[in-house]
Amino acid sequence: MKAYPEPLDQLIAALSKLPSIGRASAERIAFYLLKQRKEDVGHLSQLIGNFKAQIFYADHCHCLSDSKQCHICTSPSRDRGIICVVESPKDVISIEKTGSYFGTYHVLLGSLSALEGIGPGDLKIEDLLERIRKDKVREIILALNPNTEGETTALYLARILATLPVKVTRIAHGIPVGSMVEYTDQATLSRALEGRLPVKT
Amino acid sequence: MKAYPEPLDQLIAALSKLPSIGRASAERIAFYLLKQRKEDVGHLSQLIGNFKAQIFYADHCHCLSDSKQCHICTSPSRDRGIICVVESPKDVISIEKTGSYFGTYHVLLGSLSALEGIGPGDLKIEDLLERIRKDKVREIILALNPNTEGETTALYLARILATLPVKVTRIAHGIPVGSMVEYTDQATLSRALEGRLPVKT
Repeated sequence: MKAYPEPLDQLIAALSKLPSIGRASAERIAFYLLKQRKEDVGHLSQLIGNFKAQIFYADHCHCLSDSKQCHICTSPSRDRGIICVVESPKDVISIEKTGSYFGTYHVLLGSLSALEGIGPGDLKIEDLLERIRKDKVREIILALNPNTEGETTALYLARILATLPVKVTRIAHGIPVGSMVEYTDQATLSRALEGRLPVKT
Repeated sequence: MKAYPEPLDQLIAALSKLPSIGRASAERIAFYLLKQRKEDVGHLSQLIGNFKAQIFYADHCHCLSDSKQCHICTSPSRDRGIICVVESPKDVISIEKTGSYFGTYHVLLGSLSALEGIGPGDLKIEDLLERIRKDKVREIILALNPNTEGETTALYLARILATLPVKVTRIAHGIPVGSMVEYTDQATLSRALEGRLPVKT
């Protein structure tokens, strides 16, 4: 039995494919849009249609940007001598939100994965080496994910960078703030012990 | 601090306004779209942009339709002598999904509400009366919501329809299938008692 008119049915089907939207939410959104003013719906349609053409991976650092030069790299208040290496543009956003990092970023656009067939040539490693040479970089902070792919990538990068006159560090892994020792998994706890720091008094 | 490029930020803000989508889901959807092929994203944009122009409230019955004549009203297999009166087009879908109703529908596009200032003139009551006269309707089934607005609307309609040569019925209110007497609220239970039917043997 055909319950919805065709255009509505197609929209609901398309919305259901989006992450975190199920069939029921898609129906709710479609009916919501049906009630909105035509201009507002047209605006949303345009935003979706145009944003892909307006967003690039910036040259050199591969952060998401609306121009070829990323606003972090070009900011006079950022220290271009420190580069934080991350896997995806989302990681940049997360670190920016902390408000406690004032260097620049380098997005690898992935991590080494034998399973998915992603090798060093698929990541933006060459660009990173070029930046280190050009910008007289003093420190590379590896902020890769603590999983198999991230660890492999970190190890690979650390070996390559060891030949260059640059300090290589990793962000600390340990007990999350607000969590408890009792409930922390063994892998995290052992990393927290390895990464122990002298107490300042 | 500006974390996202402008077009991405605007899209996330627009998506967050949709029902059942929070900020986190909006970000997830935006990044998902960023990864999709340009044609697929363009298709979604077009669906959203065009569907409002392609969906109408059908003449006479005010069901949602992609033409001026609703497919239920024009179907030869539907009994035009029975009209089920509902508040919104969504109710039509719900009843259609049961697959056990073969009459037609009439959508009021709302319910009487003193609080929201919705009077009889704001609902599609005139059209209903005209259909009853024209189509020689035998029965009107009121399927309004069991809340203050729905009850008021049902009472109002019942009084108007009493002057016409048509049978007026209401869908039953009672214990939902799969529920238990013990956990049923008092209002529902008392309606279930009022609506009791003789047991067929």
